[in-house]
Amino acid sequence: MKRLAILGSTGSIGQSTLDVVRAHPDRLKVIALAAGSNGERLRQQAATFGAPITALASETGSAGLIAVATHPDVDIVICASSGTDALEAVLAAIGAGKTIALANKEVLVMAGALVTAAARARGVAIFPVDSEHNAIHQGLHGRRPEEVRRIILTASGGPFRGMSASALETVKPEDALRHPTWQMGRKITIDSATLMNKGLEVIEAHWLFNLPGDRIDVIIHPQSIVHSMVELTDGSIIAQLGGADMKLPIQYACSYPDRWEAPVARLDLTAVGRLDFETPDLERFPCLRLAYRALEAGPSHAVVLNAANEVAVAAYLQEKISFVSIPRVIEETMAVHSGVPATTLETVREIDRWARLYSQNVARGLELKV
Amino acid sequence: MKRLAILGSTGSIGQSTLDVVRAHPDRLKVIALAAGSNGERLRQQAATFGAPITALASETGSAGLIAVATHPDVDIVICASSGTDALEAVLAAIGAGKTIALANKEVLVMAGALVTAAARARGVAIFPVDSEHNAIHQGLHGRRPEEVRRIILTASGGPFRGMSASALETVKPEDALRHPTWQMGRKITIDSATLMNKGLEVIEAHWLFNLPGDRIDVIIHPQSIVHSMVELTDGSIIAQLGGADMKLPIQYACSYPDRWEAPVARLDLTAVGRLDFETPDLERFPCLRLAYRALEAGPSHAVVLNAANEVAVAAYLQEKISFVSIPRVIEETMAVHSGVPATTLETVREIDRWARLYSQNVARGLELKV
Repeated sequence: MKRLAILGSTGSIGQSTLDVVRAHPDRLKVIALAAGSNGERLRQQAATFGAPITALASETGSAGLIAVATHPDVDIVICASSGTDALEAVLAAIGAGKTIALANKEVLVMAGALVTAAARARGVAIFPVDSEHNAIHQGLHGRRPEEVRRIILTASGGPFRGMSASALETVKPEDALRHPTWQMGRKITIDSATLMNKGLEVIEAHWLFNLPGDRIDVIIHPQSIVHSMVELTDGSIIAQLGGADMKLPIQYACSYPDRWEAPVARLDLTAVGRLDFETPDLERFPCLRLAYRALEAGPSHAVVLNAANEVAVAAYLQEKISFVSIPRVIEETMAVHSGVPATTLETVREIDRWARLYSQNVARGLELKV
Repeated sequence: MKRLAILGSTGSIGQSTLDVVRAHPDRLKVIALAAGSNGERLRQQAATFGAPITALASETGSAGLIAVATHPDVDIVICASSGTDALEAVLAAIGAGKTIALANKEVLVMAGALVTAAARARGVAIFPVDSEHNAIHQGLHGRRPEEVRRIILTASGGPFRGMSASALETVKPEDALRHPTWQMGRKITIDSATLMNKGLEVIEAHWLFNLPGDRIDVIIHPQSIVHSMVELTDGSIIAQLGGADMKLPIQYACSYPDRWEAPVARLDLTAVGRLDFETPDLERFPCLRLAYRALEAGPSHAVVLNAANEVAVAAYLQEKISFVSIPRVIEETMAVHSGVPATTLETVREIDRWARLYSQNVARGLELKV
């Protein structure tokens, strides 16, 4: 029996995690649940799953998250709370020796060096809870580092994949918010449209799999059936395929090194029929290029990239700036950051604060005239 | 340094094996070479690679093959000679404790029970030297039997994939002999067109991976880029992709459990662009159904299937019977065989002889009137 804590239990990943627990009552038990502000649903979940420990961040702050993440009865912490609030809780869970199932992008993008160093020091495993990195984890399983030539992350290409550079100048948020494959939040949907989502995943992959940026490639694959691939030294490519269901990587993190029947629809490749692949266009979608540049420049640059991107996307969602201004905001902010050692959580937060302020100014200068 | 013997060194697989040796002079050494009748090329190869032992089957018979396959200085036997002559040599190599790299279909189709029992008893590994089973081997690597739901062999579908049932009635051998992807011999090209090639691979897969027929599926994939797949219990599908080059599975068998740079072209999925998948049509291509039936019925039925298929394909290549008569010859021959224990090589050869004679009679009855 593996005992779980879920940070962000009332969100989409949190609920999928509870679906996985429901499918394996003899293998998984929920010990502790933490949510942001939806106290009603949190209480319902705790009652349904008999979870003795709960914390509502709006009442307890980060202390509640940390208590849930470090509870002595917990084996695995599912980190599904969004944003940077989860950072301290994840570091605390690692310190307490918990296995980490990580669905939060910011944790590795902002503090990948800190988090992976802590996990290594404590001998703690970090399982990625997203389809791409889970696919890479499966492709690498049983293979040695020297067998790996590169990894290839697949990207749906987003809703604007086929759009011309000039059409991108005037594209509206509501056009982006119909994403082809996955049901997602507003911010991540825009990240998918700019390819920044994939850029952040390149940075995550760097930390998760200890590979430099030039051994992490991105390929556009609109059907999102091939979740990602590993190219081995002999030229063999190992791909993991599956449907679009987050319960698969969640369960993988819970069951590893075992594998269980999963409460997911079976993939029928003949029903899909066709899989397409193309090269990402870094001219029309420069955010991906900026992410590679940040990865190469060093950890503090990734903090700047992430913060400036959040600011730019928020401004775009409010229709204050155009779609093509998103990378401009990020690039201008990155240009003035010269790099500092991001060796503590406090430094990371400081860089983050600076980048948000600076990029807000840049965004203001790019505001659309109505 | 791993030391090789090659049975069938002057054929296509044999030459590809020598290309692999050429790429790894510090890792692989050729000790012994055996060929059928091309003594001139055999001597050249022996001189080029400094192989001290050679045997020409046309001069030495099976004794020469066996001497090559069991030579005490040899670690790995590449079994690339065609037909059933290799059977005794493979069993002898297993008896001598050699690692087997098997490119010969008949060995497992005719004597899978014998060969795999001998290999298990002697603790000898059998590596499949063909793209499909090599892909399965890579997909299964590092995974336990209970993680595997089924395996999925991909088939190009052959040159007549899109042809109507009525068009298949009159299709000529020369139409088949332009195979879409692989350069192959005449017999295997017709097997690819009837889907019998995939049927024989289903039987091979049964023996190699110890799975029943209902856990071995076939999917049509015209581009032959996905070489085969493994579906795991949680619904994840692990696929191996690569170019169409036999050097990859040959080298894999030689390098395992290591993996080396390979002298093969790198696969660029964006250049391929598109991968298609469809369900095989067992109405138009009944040979695949017959292979599943033989597998279910027992080992002696697979011997009958294989022998009757060879006879029927030979008659078709001579334009004596029509394309659609190939499965008829096989089905009628299988119908009168009631199954016998195929526990010795002699029994296997006897069933084989009977099935050839019987199917020749059936084929005669189906001859085209000119």
